[in-house]
This record gives sequence, structure tokens and C-alpha cells, in this order.
Amino acid sequence: MTDPTPAAPWPQPLDTSVTPRFAGLPTFMRLPVMDPADVDVALIGVPFDGGVTNRAGTRHGPRELRNQSSLVRRHHHVTGRSPYDLVRVADCGDCPTHPLDLMESLRLIEAHYAGVAKTGAIPITGGGDHLVTLPILRGLSKGAAVGLIQFDAHSDTYDSFFGQKYNHGTPFRRAIEEGLVDPRRMVQIGLRGSVADPASFDFARAAGVRMIFIEEFVARGVDDVMDEARAILGDGPTYVSFDIDAIDPSQAPGTGTPEIGGLSTREAQALVRRLAGLDVVGADLVEVAPPFDPSGLTAMTGATVMFELLCVVADSLAARGG
Amino acid sequence: MTDPTPAAPWPQPLDTSVTPRFAGLPTFMRLPVMDPADVDVALIGVPFDGGVTNRAGTRHGPRELRNQSSLVRRHHHVTGRSPYDLVRVADCGDCPTHPLDLMESLRLIEAHYAGVAKTGAIPITGGGDHLVTLPILRGLSKGAAVGLIQFDAHSDTYDSFFGQKYNHGTPFRRAIEEGLVDPRRMVQIGLRGSVADPASFDFARAAGVRMIFIEEFVARGVDDVMDEARAILGDGPTYVSFDIDAIDPSQAPGTGTPEIGGLSTREAQALVRRLAGLDVVGADLVEVAPPFDPSGLTAMTGATVMFELLCVVADSLAARGG
Amino acid sequence: MTDPTPAAPWPQPLDTSVTPRFAGLPTFMRLPVMDPADVDVALIGVPFDGGVTNRAGTRHGPRELRNQSSLVRRHHHVTGRSPYDLVRVADCGDCPTHPLDLMESLRLIEAHYAGVAKTGAIPITGGGDHLVTLPILRGLSKGAAVGLIQFDAHSDTYDSFFGQKYNHGTPFRRAIEEGLVDPRRMVQIGLRGSVADPASFDFARAAGVRMIFIEEFVARGVDDVMDEARAILGDGPTYVSFDIDAIDPSQAPGTGTPEIGGLSTREAQALVRRLAGLDVVGADLVEVAPPFDPSGLTAMTGATVMFELLCVVADSLAARGG
Amino acid sequence: MTDPTPAAPWPQPLDTSVTPRFAGLPTFMRLPVMDPADVDVALIGVPFDGGVTNRAGTRHGPRELRNQSSLVRRHHHVTGRSPYDLVRVADCGDCPTHPLDLMESLRLIEAHYAGVAKTGAIPITGGGDHLVTLPILRGLSKGAAVGLIQFDAHSDTYDSFFGQKYNHGTPFRRAIEEGLVDPRRMVQIGLRGSVADPASFDFARAAGVRMIFIEEFVARGVDDVMDEARAILGDGPTYVSFDIDAIDPSQAPGTGTPEIGGLSTREAQALVRRLAGLDVVGADLVEVAPPFDPSGLTAMTGATVMFELLCVVADSLAARGG
Amino acid sequence: MTDPTPAAPWPQPLDTSVTPRFAGLPTFMRLPVMDPADVDVALIGVPFDGGVTNRAGTRHGPRELRNQSSLVRRHHHVTGRSPYDLVRVADCGDCPTHPLDLMESLRLIEAHYAGVAKTGAIPITGGGDHLVTLPILRGLSKGAAVGLIQFDAHSDTYDSFFGQKYNHGTPFRRAIEEGLVDPRRMVQIGLRGSVADPASFDFARAAGVRMIFIEEFVARGVDDVMDEARAILGDGPTYVSFDIDAIDPSQAPGTGTPEIGGLSTREAQALVRRLAGLDVVGADLVEVAPPFDPSGLTAMTGATVMFELLCVVADSLAARGG
Amino acid sequence: MTDPTPAAPWPQPLDTSVTPRFAGLPTFMRLPVMDPADVDVALIGVPFDGGVTNRAGTRHGPRELRNQSSLVRRHHHVTGRSPYDLVRVADCGDCPTHPLDLMESLRLIEAHYAGVAKTGAIPITGGGDHLVTLPILRGLSKGAAVGLIQFDAHSDTYDSFFGQKYNHGTPFRRAIEEGLVDPRRMVQIGLRGSVADPASFDFARAAGVRMIFIEEFVARGVDDVMDEARAILGDGPTYVSFDIDAIDPSQAPGTGTPEIGGLSTREAQALVRRLAGLDVVGADLVEVAPPFDPSGLTAMTGATVMFELLCVVADSLAARGG
Ligand SMILES: [Mn+2]
Ligand SMILES: [Mn+2]
Ligand SMILES: [Mn+2]
Ligand SMILES: [Mn+2]
Ligand SMILES: [Mn+2]
Ligand SMILES: [Mn+2]
Ligand SMILES: [Mn+2]
Ligand SMILES: [Mn+2]
Ligand SMILES: [Mn+2]
Ligand SMILES: [Mn+2]
Ligand SMILES: [Mn+2]
Ligand SMILES: [Mn+2]
Repeated sequence: MTDPTPAAPWPQPLDTSVTPRFAGLPTFMRLPVMDPADVDVALIGVPFDGGVTNRAGTRHGPRELRNQSSLVRRHHHVTGRSPYDLVRVADCGDCPTHPLDLMESLRLIEAHYAGVAKTGAIPITGGGDHLVTLPILRGLSKGAAVGLIQFDAHSDTYDSFFGQKYNHGTPFRRAIEEGLVDPRRMVQIGLRGSVADPASFDFARAAGVRMIFIEEFVARGVDDVMDEARAILGDGPTYVSFDIDAIDPSQAPGTGTPEIGGLSTREAQALVRRLAGLDVVGADLVEVAPPFDPSGLTAMTGATVMFELLCVVADSLAARGG
Repeated sequence: MTDPTPAAPWPQPLDTSVTPRFAGLPTFMRLPVMDPADVDVALIGVPFDGGVTNRAGTRHGPRELRNQSSLVRRHHHVTGRSPYDLVRVADCGDCPTHPLDLMESLRLIEAHYAGVAKTGAIPITGGGDHLVTLPILRGLSKGAAVGLIQFDAHSDTYDSFFGQKYNHGTPFRRAIEEGLVDPRRMVQIGLRGSVADPASFDFARAAGVRMIFIEEFVARGVDDVMDEARAILGDGPTYVSFDIDAIDPSQAPGTGTPEIGGLSTREAQALVRRLAGLDVVGADLVEVAPPFDPSGLTAMTGATVMFELLCVVADSLAARGG
Repeated sequence: MTDPTPAAPWPQPLDTSVTPRFAGLPTFMRLPVMDPADVDVALIGVPFDGGVTNRAGTRHGPRELRNQSSLVRRHHHVTGRSPYDLVRVADCGDCPTHPLDLMESLRLIEAHYAGVAKTGAIPITGGGDHLVTLPILRGLSKGAAVGLIQFDAHSDTYDSFFGQKYNHGTPFRRAIEEGLVDPRRMVQIGLRGSVADPASFDFARAAGVRMIFIEEFVARGVDDVMDEARAILGDGPTYVSFDIDAIDPSQAPGTGTPEIGGLSTREAQALVRRLAGLDVVGADLVEVAPPFDPSGLTAMTGATVMFELLCVVADSLAARGG
Repeated sequence: MTDPTPAAPWPQPLDTSVTPRFAGLPTFMRLPVMDPADVDVALIGVPFDGGVTNRAGTRHGPRELRNQSSLVRRHHHVTGRSPYDLVRVADCGDCPTHPLDLMESLRLIEAHYAGVAKTGAIPITGGGDHLVTLPILRGLSKGAAVGLIQFDAHSDTYDSFFGQKYNHGTPFRRAIEEGLVDPRRMVQIGLRGSVADPASFDFARAAGVRMIFIEEFVARGVDDVMDEARAILGDGPTYVSFDIDAIDPSQAPGTGTPEIGGLSTREAQALVRRLAGLDVVGADLVEVAPPFDPSGLTAMTGATVMFELLCVVADSLAARGG
Repeated sequence: MTDPTPAAPWPQPLDTSVTPRFAGLPTFMRLPVMDPADVDVALIGVPFDGGVTNRAGTRHGPRELRNQSSLVRRHHHVTGRSPYDLVRVADCGDCPTHPLDLMESLRLIEAHYAGVAKTGAIPITGGGDHLVTLPILRGLSKGAAVGLIQFDAHSDTYDSFFGQKYNHGTPFRRAIEEGLVDPRRMVQIGLRGSVADPASFDFARAAGVRMIFIEEFVARGVDDVMDEARAILGDGPTYVSFDIDAIDPSQAPGTGTPEIGGLSTREAQALVRRLAGLDVVGADLVEVAPPFDPSGLTAMTGATVMFELLCVVADSLAARGG
Repeated sequence: MTDPTPAAPWPQPLDTSVTPRFAGLPTFMRLPVMDPADVDVALIGVPFDGGVTNRAGTRHGPRELRNQSSLVRRHHHVTGRSPYDLVRVADCGDCPTHPLDLMESLRLIEAHYAGVAKTGAIPITGGGDHLVTLPILRGLSKGAAVGLIQFDAHSDTYDSFFGQKYNHGTPFRRAIEEGLVDPRRMVQIGLRGSVADPASFDFARAAGVRMIFIEEFVARGVDDVMDEARAILGDGPTYVSFDIDAIDPSQAPGTGTPEIGGLSTREAQALVRRLAGLDVVGADLVEVAPPFDPSGLTAMTGATVMFELLCVVADSLAARGG
């Protein structure tokens, strides 16, 4: 038996019955490498950790996400569908970054995503630290602010660290200030952990961001929380940003700023699946730091969350385009 | 103080107050090594990974399960009972296997378990990849199909891989085809994860197997699910097969095909305890792959699940024999 | 931006915007080292594993708890308060121990804590194996028995091991016998795991200790269980002892006697927070064994639990002293 | 500054000043993926461990060799030359294998290398267990026996294991029996370690193989030993087979059959460099088992040895072709 | 092919062609478990670390030495001989120890070895920390002082630590004081590392012990040093004590007191082989601490050194008894 | 027994017989924390990895060097002397750095060392990546160029990477260009590994730097090489820079740019000891990257090399000042 014949004429992940999962180059989901211009959904790596203030290592994230994504197969077990039968998906390689120059990296990333945006492909990014979301949003911007749902232990709305405005604790403050994100269409889920300054939440709250701390999430459950989140996000274009540290460090230890008491992967999957039907204009999975992930569990979890995101996007695109 | 005097005159685990748990040979549960003919329940290792299609290593499973089982003590904390006071249990050594010949291994395992079956001892196996369940069922077979409850992330009812009919993704299809298992008395719990081909579930469904995916399990809970499972299994002879990958990879990372969002050990223990009173004719704990388990947590979890299975079997035997 | 100006004039953790968290000496919570006489709450290490009967290593616990505590910031995310704004807290160094002489270590620890008691500072200890709680209670004793709440997989009320009365399986039996703890004001939460002798629970039960096994905890939930616990503990002076093995080994693998099916960190945090307002006279976090914790997750979890305990104590002191 | 302009017009490793070494797909040496027909030297992976009798894992070897080869740069520091300036080199992908069928894998490998041989490209292989050398030799064979130099802790000239003629302890006995290798032009260096049967050496000795045990190597040194080896190998076509276990397990722990007291990497490099000028018709680096190599040191060592082999081959080709 | 038929009628290691090396119980060298009275050489474990002053863990040494000894085969590759063909060897189990009582452990070990001495079997011990050598020497003593050769980074002739006379830094001072060892027939090889008190060497020097520091060893080489050592040891009864920390921490990281710049395994093997023909009355391999040896390399090295010691003893016994 | 009474009245490492090595805060060598103004030799950490182009992590270097330095004792085993008896030494804390701003970090480091220079204390630094040597040299500069001996696998004389002049591949080119180092009094030992551009060596060679590749070192040996090096360095002020990657990755795996075939620790110690008597004005040990050093071996090696450097400096100071 080989894998079933794909329903679509475009490139597919390597057939697991022909090329064992330990063989072949570790591209995202074992997909071919293609140009964004030729796909509907572009899987892109951003190898970067210049925005990290404590434990770095996310520069190695894309490589290990690709490596572990060999464990992911074609069809989603709940829907039974394969995203590769619905839309054209490929590994579109790594975004250029500069390992020694933070500000230059922001420019490189913005330019790269502006190029992707021109193709019309929806990017799903494997980071990289969370600062990368800022230049991605800049690159994707078509002028109007987008909605944003963020899964994260941290609000990332600090003003600055060490007098520096651009780091992985500040991207969403900058994005709001720059008009990239509409804070009234912005939701954060999974917040927790001790903070240097609780006033850091004041900016977000004042701007209109809906912050759902882990305690509220636990009390209400996935469905109630997501009903509210979907109401806030509405039908407009929406970006999805998933910081792997939203998930508990027992299931995602390989990250720079772990906080105990986090989401289970079971909850994370349920949350992502409730994004079905939204107008997702881009998504990312960030903060996987392989040097702190010797077992590969974090990257494996991250790759699976990327697949869940891909399924949501593909289903949604197929529904609209269908 | 020493461990309490056993209530039974037969061999017992080493007394932890005489031989520290770090001392002595690592037999299963620190029990003596005996012949199956002299026990009621036989703990057996099957060091084998010839059926693995991606990440191997379960050939080292029995050794590490034994090693970690030194952490398990005599009495179950819920029942207060010691299985060793109820029935005769021993480590009956490893089943022969052939590291270079899959088909010969199937023959060796079948023959070994046929020998065990003759003694009347109930085998509880520490694997080994999941393919070993097939020759075990063959060896134990008395002609009539048995019921089977399987805890697993995967259905293992594929037809073949790489054109090969015997591997760890196919044992239950073969067992049904061979009349070893009655699919109408078969339940699978914990299924999840992306699949190469969703049609793989069709065979099982068509055959009458009750597949309970993790989403249904979470929605209904242990008791509701097990009420149904027990109704399906009924009073007939039943085999219990526990694939360690049913448990979440944060608690059982050391396995070849991990899938996030799995059972917690707490749920797994509750599930196994609800097997109480069934007519268990054999059980196994498979897919522990020590090379991917540097901390030993997976083997420790596996050894504890084996103890839970042993307690269920011992209680049941005592109740019947009593 | 720097960390906000502390509300209090006394020493504070290093400012994360001036000294990165990877820099500086790893004291508890990055606090200055001070004498207990100059603080309200004293964070103290007890590097000791002389009481361990199986897997040792807790002698290295205090160092790694300090190391990982660099990840903890000033303010609690639920209350928004910083304990350092409410009371004077410092790292008061390590208690002397003798690595080759168990009984001498008991004397050294008792003497050290008697000295701390004289200062009026409330000690929060990072152990060390659980035996250290006994000499701590002796040192802190003012004659009358105190109440005690213990989070633990084990009751630690055995009589002896290998004929030895003082080890990490016996401290609470000794404490009750010595009149240090009032067993009718004593609660144990999270008990589970196979036991060498179920009769070990009889002593505790007969003495009046309320033992809440994990199964009861799961059935009732945090609030119901803690309502009962608070009723038992009442308003009197109460000691809090948190054995890290109360938490599931997937979240706290680095300990000598792990038992699957344990508390989640989410539950543990909720439990500790429900201690708010009690008259806590001392607390400890014990059984972190770094040699079995290569990723540091256990020490990170332990350090965070110490912070949760600190917040409870600081809030309580502030409320009383206010 | 960027990497210097290559002296040759053909594809080159990614420029480290444009694409950081942590970025991009991990091909061998960061080279493009090409067809063997378009290169002079073909770097090929053979993901296979079906021939292993104890600790498997070499199926993951090619992926990790590629991953670690990102650390290798263009120019050899002793010669100053870049092989990529001398000949056309590329990553020619993985050879097909069958994870469940040893004999079918032998056929697949032989066929693949027969195809490579037709192109005239010289293959340098990253294994895979040592059995893969047999079908490689079969595939490359042009009828006449070749010379062979083997770096290995083991002679690999057993007759069989478990009654099986094809496994990683037997390839060179088979190769001699099949007339693929001329035993009088065959040298083994680094032999050591306890043996199941010292008579296993008798076949090799009788056939005329020159076996140089580690003790003789240490007594004589690199130059003396290699002078003799070169005299034995002569000018004829020669295959080079490097088993990573030739190197000491402190420098190459990730292998299935480690033996203490091995070659240092310093010695290994010196030995390989002394192959300069030989008529090398193929080479391999085998037995890297990533599951036993958590730090990646073994794969990094293996990738560097592959680079040393590549430099020897490129220099030799350039000298002849020049 | 199976392993060759042993030349002797007594028990042998498991045949690697019948029982794969990953199968079966991990006894020393896969030998049967027997009573010392029935063998010529008794392999014995002493699971103990009560004498450690810094990093413990050697209580787990015997188990992991046994585990890794599965990699050792029957015949020595230099001599071609199998010790099991020359003398009767078995795994004689673990010596009793008390995990909470150092002085009682000394009594238990002495008594156990006194029992072994009565049988006439020569014990080769796998420790355990180095303090165990003291009670072993006491137990083996027949009144007259023996000669002793010690491979160690440390002299272990301190007077006391923390006021305690019995710990792993003092055994040889005690042994000399007690007349168990004749200091004029005592040699130490491999000494190095910073010391708390250089005067610690004065006792040994004054007593007549020949201390060979690593610098002298490097300058002179194995043969010159061993010529002198053999002259000092002479023909009288001699005990061999091998502290694994004599070997460099890159090759033996899993020990409590590592010192860089140590013996290579190659040198260690050469040194041990030069003991050939001595009248060895006992030997040990101590200080393997598995919690600091995640890869198992140290235990594998230790098991191989035990095999080298066994070969020396067996050859010597055969020569005398022959 | 306690450690011997120091010969000097100033602060000393904690007494190992009073405070076990696992206890107490991990300062460098367990020394007190003091101001550089009060010491002769200042041990300083520079937690920084902003100059790394591939694998980062050296920001965590100082903490782990301190942690592992607890294993180092007071007296050198060859000289018998304790540096703490000769000169005043202390842990002078960490130099300020900016985790997000490379150029600001260079300013901070320069300013800090300028301050140290004013006190007259000789700094021995634990890095940090190798770029830190540049601002250290700037801070220490008194106008005249100093001599420099560098132990390193790499020359670190590239011009730039990614168009950036300041990174860990360029410090010594900058130092020469800026007149901080006299290239005719500069020696590099241990160079090796493939290079992006062999022309990178041309700058150094043209400037007059003596580059000793590993092959030359092996051929000549420690003494011959150091005789030459000392002749080049002469009597003038000399800085010593030790990149841990000079040492072989089997003994120092935890570094960003490992190269096989390196110095053994035995050789490294011998090399450092041959610096005796030089006029050392400062020294550093850089490139320890703890995230790639799970066992701590690299940091332990680094701490020991720092001790060797300290002994050389102390002996030299004592000889001059005596
Ligand atoms: Mn974030
Ligand atoms: Mn976050
Ligand atoms: Mn399965
Ligand atoms: Mn499964
Ligand atoms: Mn406890
Ligand atoms: Mn406990
Ligand atoms: Mn080989
Ligand atoms: Mn080999
Ligand atoms: Mn010793
Ligand atoms: Mn030693
Ligand atoms: Mn450098
Ligand atoms: Mn370097």
C-alpha cells in the first residue's frame, strides 16, 4: 500500500510508503521547496533570535521545526481532510536575517514578507523569536489594521527593555502604535507568569486589547473563550500569532521564557481548531529554541501546531474559493 | 522496620528494607526469575523493533522497563492490596527474537507464547513494538476469537507499509483477518494524530471495531467511555493491549510515533483500573523506545502501567479462584 | 524603560532592565544576601540528601533552585503585587549540613533554624530531602504544636527504613511523636503511588491526620479540598511543606521518588494560592534532585512554587502588620 | 565581506556571509541538490540500519550528517584548497531503502549505485550501517575486484549472525567471497575490542587482508602504517570505507558498537590525508547512530571526515584531470 | 554461526548469536548468577555512595556497570583468549549495604568479603565509591599486609573530612594505618588536580607509597612506569584498585570528582595489561556515578576495564594453576 | 581536619571542610565578592554573545564557569602552591553588557575594564564570546601595544561578516588595526578547521602574527612551540586569550564553533604552565556556551584553565613583588 492518491494535481508531501520519514531532506511537512508565487499557502522560516532578552536559540527554530515536521502526516484526524488536497502549499525557504544586526533584520524580514504579500500567498511562519511578528505584519500590511489573536504566556506589550524599543517583549505595542493591528480586534490567550512590571498590561488594556489570563481560561473553557474571541475578531482580516510558550513547559520546554501552569497541547489544539472560518491573512509559530529542547518535543509540538494552523487556513481558503 | 510479611507463601519482590531499590538485578518488579509453569501471572519481555517504520529502539524496551520497575512497590495505594499476596507472579524472562529477520521473529514469539499458554499462566508482556501483539495473540489462541481493548494513539489497522503486511501499523488488521480477535468485541481508546490515509480507519469501522478518538474521550470522560467499553467487551476472554503512545509525549516521550494531545497518566491509570473484573487472558505494554527516553520517564510510566495491569489481573484471578 | 521603582525602601531583586537575567550571582530571586535578623522573610537553602533511601541528589537542590529562580520576576500576575514591596525579603544563604553524618546534620539544621526563629523572620526553605523538615520544625518550635499542610505524593509517616528512624520517609511521624505538629491540624494532599506497606497510613490516620489521596482530589477539585483543609488548619500557626514530587513527574522529573498521575503545576499553583491569609510560620520546597533534572524544569517549577509561597506569606504579613 | 568568489563556475556551498549557517535546508555541506549525472563527486545518504545486531539508529545517520555538515566551510586549512573549486560536487539525495526488508534494501542500494556508476560520478556515502558497503560495492563493480582500505574497530568479516549472512558484521567477508574486493589489496586499521570469536579474524588473514590492530598502529604511528597501506593498495582502483567506530567513543559516542581505546580524530584526519593521490572510486562514512548522539558530536565528526575524504578525492581528480 | 563452543565445561556468558545483546537480564558480562563458593573469580557489586563528600551517585554504579557490560564479548582481542575458558567466573550479586548508615555499611561490606575470602574466589568488584576498598581489604585480609596498585586522580590518603575519618578521600590512609596494605609495596598512578591541602601527600610519601603524578607518567610512558611499579609490587599478594576518575573526564565523565588531563582509555588498557602475572588477590573498579553519565560511556568504559582486569586475573590463575 | 590555615591574611575560598562544595553561592573559585580596588587579581564575568555568527549561548558562560569552579581546590598539584596565599584574588562580579545592542556592549565593556585598569588589579575574565577581548584590550590599554598569546582553533582575524566589522571572528584584526596589540609580539596556537576564506590568514601573516596550526604543534610538541612563543612575546606586557575551542570538542563540546582534532586538556595545561614568568597584564577564557554543554564538562574545563591562568599570574606577581 502507498499513501492514497492526492485529490489535487499539485505537489504533495513525500509519500511515506515510498520515502520513509527518516529519509529525505527535512523540508516543512516534507513538501517540495517552491516560490511563494506558485502556492496558496507559503511555509516560511525566520531564523532569528536578535530580539531575545534572556535565553536565545530561536535562530535554530526553523531547522528543527522542519526536522520534526517529518512526523506529521497528510490528513487531519478530526476532519479527515488533507490541506494539500485543498490548496497549494509548499516550503518557501527561509527569510533572510542578519545575525549581528537587529534593525537590519527587521528591514530584511519586512521586505521579504512584502514580497510574499504581493504573490497573494498566505504565509505561515516558523520563527524565530516573537519580535519577528512585527516586521511580518509590516510586510503584509495593506494599509488597514488587521485583527490579531495571540496565544502566549506573555502580553509582549512592554514599551522597551534596556532602553531598546525592539525586542521580543514589545512587538505588539509597536504593532498597535504603528496601526498595523487594531487593538479592538485583538485577543490574547494564556497570559500568566510573574512580571517585571504589572503596568505593562495597562497599555494593552487601555488600547482595547482583550487579555485572557490562564486563570480565566481555565474557569471558562475553550468554547466559551473562543466564542468571545471570534466575536471580537469578527469577519475582518486576522493574523494568528502562536508563541510556543503559551503551552506548558512540560510539553514545550524548549523556549526562552517558560512559565509553569500553561495550556496543554490538547487545549492548544482545540483553541486553534476554533479558528475555523476566520479570514486568516497570516500566521506564525514562534519562540521554539532548540538548544533548550534536546528531546525535540517542543519542535514536534510546534510543527504539529503549524499543521493545525495550516488545516484551518486551507479549509477556510477552500470554503471561500470553492 | 522491614516490609510487611507477605500474606502468601510464594516468591515476592525483594524487600525494600533489606535490599535498597538501587541494588540487585533489575528483574520486573524485583521479582524472582521463574518458569511460567510455576506462576499464575508471567511477566515477559519481548525485545523487538523489527516492525517499526520510522524511529526504532523498542528492542531495548524490556530492559529499561525492568530497570525502572525497581521504583514500583508491592501494594496498590487505592485498593491497599498487593498482587503478590493474591497470585503467584514472577519475571519469566525474555521471549526469543531474531534481530535480523522479522518473519522468523514472528514465529519465535508465537511459539514462545504457545508454550506459556500451555502452562495456564496469564502473560503480561513488556514490548517491543506493537507488531509483537500479533504473534502473542497467535500463541495464546485457543481457536476462538477473543475480545480486545487497545489504548493507543493509532488504530494499527493499516493494510501494509512499503508493500509489507507485517509491521507495527498493521497488527490488529491481521489479527481480525486471522480470526484471533472478534472485532465486535474490540475497543480502541485514545486515537489521534495526523494520518497518512484516513481510509485506514474504514477497515476497522467496517469490521465493527469501536474507535474512540481522543476528542470523544475528552468530551465524555473515563467513566462514560469505560461503561461503554465494558459493555462491548462483555464477560468473554479479553486481551488488553496498551501502546505507551496513547499517553501524551510529555509523560511518555520515549516512543517512536509520538502524538501530542494524548492521555494523561492520571487518565490512563483510571482507564486501566476500570478493567477490574474482566476476564483478562493476557496484556501487554508496548512501544517504549529507550533511546528516545533519556530520563527514563517513559519506562517508569510503562512499568507503573504494567503494575496497574497486574493488579487488575491479580484481583480478578483471586476473585474467581477465591 | 527600567523595572518600576519599588514601593518599598528596602533591598529588591536586581532590576531586569539593568542586569540581564543571565548575569549576576544566582541568589534566590536575584535578591541580596542578608542576615535573617534584617528581614521579614528569609529564603534559606538546606543542601542535604542524607535521608534519601533510593535516588539521592537533593544536596544540589538549593543551588539549582537559586539558578532557576532568575527566571522569576517581581510581581505576581494574579494579584499584581510584588512581595518585595510588602515585606523585607532576602537570600539568607545555606544552612550548615554535614555530608557524611546524618544525625549531626539534624543537629546543625535545628540549631540554624532556632537562630532564625529568634530573629522573628519567617523562613522559606529550599531543600534538601524531606527529612530536613523535621529539624526545621524542631528549630522553629516555640513549645506548642503547629498545624501543617503537606503537598506530597507520599505520607512520609513510615516508622523506619533499614531499622533507621530518621530518613525522608519518616519526618512527619517523628514530628507528631515529638509534639512538634498537631496531627488534628494536619492535612496531606496529593498522596499516591504504590507503597511498601499500606499499614504505613494507619499511624497517620490513627493520629488524626487528614490524608487526601490524588483520586479524592481529582474528584473534588481544588476549592472543595482547600475549603476543608483551611477548616482543619484554622487560625493557628501553620507550617507549609511542599514536596516537589506532589507534582507530576512530567513537570517535575528531577526528584528521587517520582509517582505518575500527580498534581499539575496549574493545580499546584491554585492550591498554594488558597493558603492566603493563613498564619504561616514557615514553609519549604523540598526534594528537588538536580542530577535527575537535566533540563532544569524541576528547579524552575520549584523556584516558582517558592515564589507563590512567598507571595502568600508576604500578603499575609502585610495584612496583619498593615 | 562575503565568502571569496569561487574559482569555478559550478554550484557552490551557500555563502556563509549571506546565509548564516543556522539558516537554509541542511544539505550535505550546504551544497545544492543535483543529479549525479551533473557532478564529478556525488554526496549520497543511505538511511538504513537493517543490518544492525545490537543498537540500531543509523537510519537517521544521513539526516544528522547533513545537519552537522553546516559547520564545515569551503577550504581545507592545510592545503588551502576548496574541493568545490576543483570539481563539481553536490548533494545527490538519499538512496532508496526498505525499512522492513533487509534483502530488498540490498537490491535497492545496489541498483541505485549502479545508476550512479553509469554517470561516472564518484560517490561519497553517508550511512547507514556498515552492511551498506556491500551493495554499494556491488553497484559500483565493473567486474574487476577493487582495493579497499577500511578504518574500523571491527573487521566485519564474520560469516553470519543468528544464521543470517547479511548484517553489519559480515560485509567484507561477502565482498571478498563475491570477488568485489581483492583481499590482497585490502587493509584494515584500528581493529580492537573484545570479540565473540577470535577465529573471525582467520578468514580475513587467510584471504590476505592486512589487519592492523590499534596496538600496532599506536606503536608505529600514522606515517609508518600508511606507508605500508599505500604500498598494499598500489595504484589500482580503491574504495575507502570509514566506520565511525574506528574513532574513540569519547569523540564519536553515537554509534552502535563503541570500543574504548580508539583512534583520536587527530589521528583519523592524518590517516585520511595520507590517502592523497590514490585512485579512489568511492568512499563511505558509516555507523553514525544519532539516537545515541544527543550532542551531535558524532555526526559533526562524521561530516568533517566526509569533508576530508572529499578533499582527497577532489585533489586527486584535479591532479589526474588537470 | 553461533559463538564458538567454550573450551571449558562451566557456565559461560550468554551466546550473542542466540540471545541478542539487548536481551536478557543485565548481569556482569551476561554471566550466570552464582555463589562465590562455586567460582574462581567472583564479580561483585557494591552499591554505595555513603563516603562521598561532593557529588554522589555511585550507589547506582553496579547496576549500570552490569548494563553496559552487555557490550563486552568473550575473547580479548590481543591475547585471543577468553577468561571464561580458563577459570570459572560468575556474577555473584551485590554486597549488602545500608543507605543511611556509613559505619554499618563498612561492617556489612567487610563481613561479605570475609565470606568471599573463605571460598577462595578472587573478587573483582564494581563500586561504589572508593571508600568501599577499605572494608573489602579488611574482609579479604589474612593478617599480612598486601601490596596495592591504585589508578586514581587522587591519593585518597587524607586524614578526614568534616572531622570524619571514613570517606572516599581517606581509605588508603586507613588501610595503611590498619596494616592492611604495605605502603612500601604500594603505587599510585595518575594523580593530578588541584588539592585542598598539598600536605595530604606527605602522609603517603612518608609511609613509603610511590606516587606517580600524571606529569611523570606522561614523561615516562606506560612501560617505564609499569616496570618500576612491578618492581615495587614484587611477587607478593597484590590488590588492584581502579578509580574511574584516573581516566580523563571526556572518556569517563560520570564520576563525582572529575579532573581534566587524565589517562586516556588507551593508556589505561595498556597499564592494566602490564599487570599480567602478578599475584592479584582482588581488584575493584570504583567511582562510576551513573546520574552524571547520561550516555553510559563511563559505565561502558568501567565494564571494559573490569574485563581487562578479569583477563589479567584469569591468565594469571591459569598460569599458576595450569 | 579542615583545610590548612592560609598563609595569607586576606580572603580565601570557602573551606571545603566547613562548607561542602555543593553548598554556598557559586562565585568564581568560591571566593568572596569584592571590588577590584581591593585585590591584585580580579576574576570577572562578561556575559555576552552578541558577536556570535552561528551558535550563541556564551551569555550564560560566566554563570556556569562559576558553578563548575566549585570543583577547583586551593593548591596547584604541580607547584604545591595556592595562588590565594600569594596574592589577593576575588570574584569581582559581572561586567555590564547590553543583550540587544552590540555596539553599546562594546562601550560598556571597555568602560568597565578601564575602571579595573585604574585599580591596578589584573583581570582574568570568563566570557562571553571572543569579541569581548577587543573592548577588554581597549579598556586595559595604556597607549602602547601589548603582546598577545592566543589559544584558539580560529585566527579571528577576519575583516567582517555580513558586512559587520565587530563579531567574534574579527577581534584580533581590529586590535591590531587599533594598535592595541603588537602583531610582532603575537602568537596563535591550535589553529585548524575548514575556513570560509583562507585569505583570512593573510592579514595576520602580513602583520607579523606567528600562527601555529595544530599540525605544526603536534609535530613539535609543547616545549618546542612554547620556547618559540616565549621568545616572540619577550619580557613586555602580554595579554593571554584562551578560546575554549582550542581544546578538542570531546573535552569542550559546549562551544559555538567546535573543530575536531584539537588540543587535549593535558596539552592545554602544559601550554598554560609554560607561560610562567611572563608579564601578564590580563587573561581571558572565552567561548564557553552552556546550552551546548549539558554535562558541564566544558565549563569545568574552562574553570580549571582559569585556575591554571590564575596560578601563573599569581606566581609571577609574587616573584616580582616578592
Ligand atoms: Mn511572545
Ligand atoms: Mn511568550
Ligand atoms: Mn500501536
Ligand atoms: Mn501507537
Ligand atoms: Mn515527602
Ligand atoms: Mn514525596
Ligand atoms: Mn564496521
Ligand atoms: Mn565497527
Ligand atoms: Mn579514589
Ligand atoms: Mn579519584
Ligand atoms: Mn576565538
Ligand atoms: Mn575559536
